[in-house]
Amino acid sequence: MKINFDINPISSHLAEPLQQKLDSGAKIVGSLGLLEELALKIGCIQNSLTPSLNKPTMLLFAGDHGIVEEGVSPSSQEITHQMVKTFIQGGGAINVFTNQHNIDLKIIDAGVNYDFKSHPNLIKAKIAKGTKNFLHDPAMTKEQCIHAIAIAADIVENIQAKGCNVISFGEMGIGNTSASSVLMNIISGISLEKCVGKGGGLNESGIDRKTKILTQAIANNSIDKDNPLDILSAFGGFEHAMMVGAMLKAAELGMILLIDGFIAGSALMVAHKFNQNILDYCVFAHQSYEKGHDLMLKYFNATPLLDLKMHLGEGTGAAVAYPLLESAVTLLNDMATFEQANVMRVV
Amino acid sequence: MKINFDINPISSHLAEPLQQKLDSGAKIVGSLGLLEELALKIGCIQNSLTPSLNKPTMLLFAGDHGIVEEGVSPSSQEITHQMVKTFIQGGGAINVFTNQHNIDLKIIDAGVNYDFKSHPNLIKAKIAKGTKNFLHDPAMTKEQCIHAIAIAADIVENIQAKGCNVISFGEMGIGNTSASSVLMNIISGISLEKCVGKGGGLNESGIDRKTKILTQAIANNSIDKDNPLDILSAFGGFEHAMMVGAMLKAAELGMILLIDGFIAGSALMVAHKFNQNILDYCVFAHQSYEKGHDLMLKYFNATPLLDLKMHLGEGTGAAVAYPLLESAVTLLNDMATFEQANVMRVV
Repeated sequence: MKINFDINPISSHLAEPLQQKLDSGAKIVGSLGLLEELALKIGCIQNSLTPSLNKPTMLLFAGDHGIVEEGVSPSSQEITHQMVKTFIQGGGAINVFTNQHNIDLKIIDAGVNYDFKSHPNLIKAKIAKGTKNFLHDPAMTKEQCIHAIAIAADIVENIQAKGCNVISFGEMGIGNTSASSVLMNIISGISLEKCVGKGGGLNESGIDRKTKILTQAIANNSIDKDNPLDILSAFGGFEHAMMVGAMLKAAELGMILLIDGFIAGSALMVAHKFNQNILDYCVFAHQSYEKGHDLMLKYFNATPLLDLKMHLGEGTGAAVAYPLLESAVTLLNDMATFEQANVMRVV
Repeated sequence: MKINFDINPISSHLAEPLQQKLDSGAKIVGSLGLLEELALKIGCIQNSLTPSLNKPTMLLFAGDHGIVEEGVSPSSQEITHQMVKTFIQGGGAINVFTNQHNIDLKIIDAGVNYDFKSHPNLIKAKIAKGTKNFLHDPAMTKEQCIHAIAIAADIVENIQAKGCNVISFGEMGIGNTSASSVLMNIISGISLEKCVGKGGGLNESGIDRKTKILTQAIANNSIDKDNPLDILSAFGGFEHAMMVGAMLKAAELGMILLIDGFIAGSALMVAHKFNQNILDYCVFAHQSYEKGHDLMLKYFNATPLLDLKMHLGEGTGAAVAYPLLESAVTLLNDMATFEQANVMRVV
């Protein structure tokens, strides 16, 4: 099973003609700000002056986390499977927003501690019924981690083969901010205190306790900090491992990756450690209210499209931002030029 | 002709049940941030636990400005009518975004220095062929100003009668940032330097020159600074006057007002001076890159939905933000509750 992906840096040879096309539109040059930057990026990713967004898809990976035993989350682990059922039945926030924007939502059981019945909306890809408690031992074996990456890559390959060229990644898993905070800390070197937030709703003493447990977990696990597979196996959730595989494969296939908030961002940090070229394909959707995300975005040198003080996860930030990608693309395709419109050039 | 509008403060008697409805959704309480605040506001405006957005409409008012003679804009006045033609033909940025979101776009000739042919997309409501140069004398007479307010109020009344309950206001008019800066300065008391920006693309020396001319204009016109009609007649454009009338009428009719950037915001400042209750009905769409808008938003104590570094006008910030209103409303109407979903309550 493969964990090396061939991601080409995007070519910038259309950057200049794309910019000219944007500047030839009947408007003040540069006056559409980030939408113009986004149009340029999408044009470069697709290597086209007339890019298009086809069959947008949200992959929502769910998994449970052994570390929850240590009281790092205010919520009970059962919430994970209950919320997955809610998504399957269409009642979650992510359903509302993906329905609104005609984004195809796929729910993937990456490793939930529950036996789901089959359902057309659910992809069964369970690696195990939750990770192990990483306080003392790795969350998963390297074989499990490689397996998760490969399965997710296959899922993306199938989706892309059906015509999807823009993809996003959501998640559900009680305890997954703990995993994300550790991944962020180890990969970025940013102090753990700055990477740990309230997650599902901890108070200050809960955050202190979470930080202490995670500090201990990092001390207890001896890993090679330059090896993303080592880091991911030791602390990741199955949903993280699958997001890593899905992201790497999507970039290899030249898709647009719409990156949600803190959890998806932590998976991207791991994917980025596997292959730095992945960033060329990423659009950052939303500044999460979860502590740590601000510094994570700075690490990527990224400006997100939205800052709506959201911190739910599920991919909601990405789904809500999606129409801005459509705005950028239509801007490039549908605006009249000064010449077509017989308008004197504005400055 | 009427310039006094009866705007009821919105009732907050549904605020608590609306908040309960939001909190009963299968998600972390408050985790959808500004979208939840927006849902609450829209519910209160419509006095409904199941609000809806019907026939969204963008009114784009165009006018010319006599002050352009003084060299306050880098663009030629002809651009105004050329851009209006572009909008009529569907080739402008505002067309792209209103088409994307099924927003009905009405273009209104409030006072362009040009004779347009009739066209189904154009509402002919010309007060005069541009305002007078306000360096020495008022831009328009009080009668013209009252007429503009009344015409725009009628337009809104007709649109509301056809089922529209959410409305926005765009504009086109070379020179209109000059008018807006003066309106903002006089109403807010914020120094003119902080209200004057690059508009259509001035450089630093151009901004200095613009500021000097506007300072002189304010000194030359003796007005009652407590009288919004006086202020608006002296310095406003016909598009400003019509936006004021349209906004006041829309609030009187209980509609949702989606407020664009710097120019629309300056009209709202005048409308707000006519009737402070108008703010209850306003949703602020976008933080403009035009200098002064930041302080204008602070004046209204407003948090805009988007900050995309845009500064085009036309209503583009409002149009691009529109799907977020839809997200807020669907959130309130379509999410499963914890009880429906059989999910244990999260925190």
